[in-house]
Amino acid sequence: MRTRPLKVALLGCGVVGSEVARIMTTHADDLAARIGAPVELAGVAVRRPSKVREGIDPALVTSDATALVKRGDIDVVVEVIGGIEPARSLITTAFEHGASVVSANKALLAQDGAALHAAAGQHGKDLYYEAAVAGAIPLIRPLRESLAGDKINRVMGIVNGTTNFILDKMDSTGAGYQEALDEATALGYAEADPTADVEGFDAAAKAAILAGIAFHTRVRLDDVYREGMTEVTAADFASAKEMGCTIKLLAICERAEDGGSVTARVHPAMIPLTHPLASVRGAYNAVFVESDAAGQLMFYGPGAGGSPTASAVLGDLVAVCRNRLSGATGPGESAYAALPVSPMGDVVTRYHISLDVADKPGVLAQVATVFAEHGVSIDTVRQQGKDGEASLVVVTHRASDASLSGTVEALRKLDTVRGVASIMRVEGE
Amino acid sequence: MRTRPLKVALLGCGVVGSEVARIMTTHADDLAARIGAPVELAGVAVRRPSKVREGIDPALVTSDATALVKRGDIDVVVEVIGGIEPARSLITTAFEHGASVVSANKALLAQDGAALHAAAGQHGKDLYYEAAVAGAIPLIRPLRESLAGDKINRVMGIVNGTTNFILDKMDSTGAGYQEALDEATALGYAEADPTADVEGFDAAAKAAILAGIAFHTRVRLDDVYREGMTEVTAADFASAKEMGCTIKLLAICERAEDGGSVTARVHPAMIPLTHPLASVRGAYNAVFVESDAAGQLMFYGPGAGGSPTASAVLGDLVAVCRNRLSGATGPGESAYAALPVSPMGDVVTRYHISLDVADKPGVLAQVATVFAEHGVSIDTVRQQGKDGEASLVVVTHRASDASLSGTVEALRKLDTVRGVASIMRVEGE
Repeated sequence: MRTRPLKVALLGCGVVGSEVARIMTTHADDLAARIGAPVELAGVAVRRPSKVREGIDPALVTSDATALVKRGDIDVVVEVIGGIEPARSLITTAFEHGASVVSANKALLAQDGAALHAAAGQHGKDLYYEAAVAGAIPLIRPLRESLAGDKINRVMGIVNGTTNFILDKMDSTGAGYQEALDEATALGYAEADPTADVEGFDAAAKAAILAGIAFHTRVRLDDVYREGMTEVTAADFASAKEMGCTIKLLAICERAEDGGSVTARVHPAMIPLTHPLASVRGAYNAVFVESDAAGQLMFYGPGAGGSPTASAVLGDLVAVCRNRLSGATGPGESAYAALPVSPMGDVVTRYHISLDVADKPGVLAQVATVFAEHGVSIDTVRQQGKDGEASLVVVTHRASDASLSGTVEALRKLDTVRGVASIMRVEGE
Repeated sequence: MRTRPLKVALLGCGVVGSEVARIMTTHADDLAARIGAPVELAGVAVRRPSKVREGIDPALVTSDATALVKRGDIDVVVEVIGGIEPARSLITTAFEHGASVVSANKALLAQDGAALHAAAGQHGKDLYYEAAVAGAIPLIRPLRESLAGDKINRVMGIVNGTTNFILDKMDSTGAGYQEALDEATALGYAEADPTADVEGFDAAAKAAILAGIAFHTRVRLDDVYREGMTEVTAADFASAKEMGCTIKLLAICERAEDGGSVTARVHPAMIPLTHPLASVRGAYNAVFVESDAAGQLMFYGPGAGGSPTASAVLGDLVAVCRNRLSGATGPGESAYAALPVSPMGDVVTRYHISLDVADKPGVLAQVATVFAEHGVSIDTVRQQGKDGEASLVVVTHRASDASLSGTVEALRKLDTVRGVASIMRVEGE
């Protein structure tokens, strides 16, 4: 074994960073044996260097992250700051000064992955980011290495623990969205400002990263259709139950049936209770992958938290260190397929639509005509009357999102349709 | 991209090999783009070269596997023959003649993994075998790479599709073992001689491989305790249901609580219906992994079949080809921890025991005394009387297998105990 240690600079020492530092210290012998050389924490850049950090030598702590990555003797920079800047500049500077990079930064990778990969390639360095998607769950490596000889057709996952906790709570207790959110906040599963989670921004960043890797195509954050889950109601869960379904916020990356384009989207959807994703409880994450040869695979585990994220970071750290020792680099960006990313209107799926309608003869015929005119075929209709008002629940066969939108627009114009109570996609069948 | 192709020799062209060849041909462009060089099928060694093989140039086919691997221009040998010989000699010869190896051979890896790894290391070549365990499910790579910075404490999985199909059928239909086996055979899920599957030999080989990787310790096939599932009855399933459980044939690799030793075992066990492994249906496989930092992970997918296994083989092929191009090798055997492998008697778990007893006062007290004398603490007892006979169902707290064996031996000697109807371990709680 080499005795000269590989030097690691840690950028950020919050929930994840402190766990990375702790494990690097307590498991130093194991890491050395697995890498083939000792790894040494050479510096820790933080915003408040005066804060006492248990187990970390104060002499290693600095507020000058730029100086740390410019030192020139750093082998690997571990970036767990999050956000776009200064993380992006620091990573670029790290490559320029000879370091490889391990990052847990989904927002940055989703927005600037191509540029960062290019910078890594230009300097012959590694950029690894298993921790950026679904925390501890090995997903990036299986997609880009284990399935490298296969053709992935769909990646569909629960990639945000906060929203899964809320939806699971609504499902199991009948609670409304606000009540379930309040509980998630009280238990620390939701942040004080939950926007990034509940509006699907976090999941959309992960969808962009996953789609890019799965389809060997650059998928920008703007390419990902995004719809949050704040409008999911207890009534939606009741409807889902009647269909033998539950509701999950899903990130779905799909290859079109003709193979010529891809789509990526995040939205709440009904999925059958028999689908493996339906039984993913609490804040857990799971990702379902369908490919030509492997068939259906699922990866399940904790999608966030200090220790799970640190596990993913350290797995990457070991890989990057091994690469340093052998003088090689791991797989870089693979975007050769360069498939067009289609807009949401091209997505084909099924829909569950609840309409409030006048309770009089002929309404169903009117509604059915509108569906037919837009080429959307109806699978089932359920009609419920109450006090002069009625509700119609329509479940469609597969149709394009554009056709469905046109249908709904036309329905809203009907005198007999008082309102569209909810529209939800049905996936996983 | 390099234009000179990497040359692949395929040993075996059955269900898996023919799929590997097919995908190498139909997806040649994708593979080339992902590897950075074209891959060329340079030869196919088979037992009956005269048989017509669709899509394979007859000029490539040979019956002389040894000559093929000795050619000297082969970059990667893909071994999908199975069994010990001639596979072992061919792989060793391949290393000697400069090739890296991708194998799907669980029996060989479980028996001779250490020697083969040593041969690969001696010649600076790769030995990859993702397809040897759980078919298409990425498992070897996640364990030895993604979790390389973590400490794995338990790997518990359904790693044999045939037995899972049979047990699932017994669970869902109430069928007995033989009836379920007959159906599995008729549907092609079980071989004419199902011994390797139903007696747990196949799962034991996989357990040895998984334990070795998870614990960085050599685990020999002989170290794996093995108990088949041919004696699981419809009555066992009824008992399991009463406990909110189902029965699965599990491969379990565990680190002892003090961390100083490991165990590996294969046997049928009751697991709670709420456990993620309980809902693994049909011939699917799933492996549950528990580690210090990542927590609980699960990997799910098809554990066998031509296409799924080919997917795993091709993922390895891409990785090994990339390594050839960069002049590096991937992670080899990691056995530095060299932990002792404890015998089955040291395994600590819970037990579900059904006794046929005389229906008279004092029997429960006698039985309870025997458990207490052997230090096995009882969790629950259920007594059912019928026509002068009675059954006692005892569920224990955690106890060592040795203590439980001692208890059962003593129970058999009691006049009031007419027989021990079944003993089953309870896992996953």
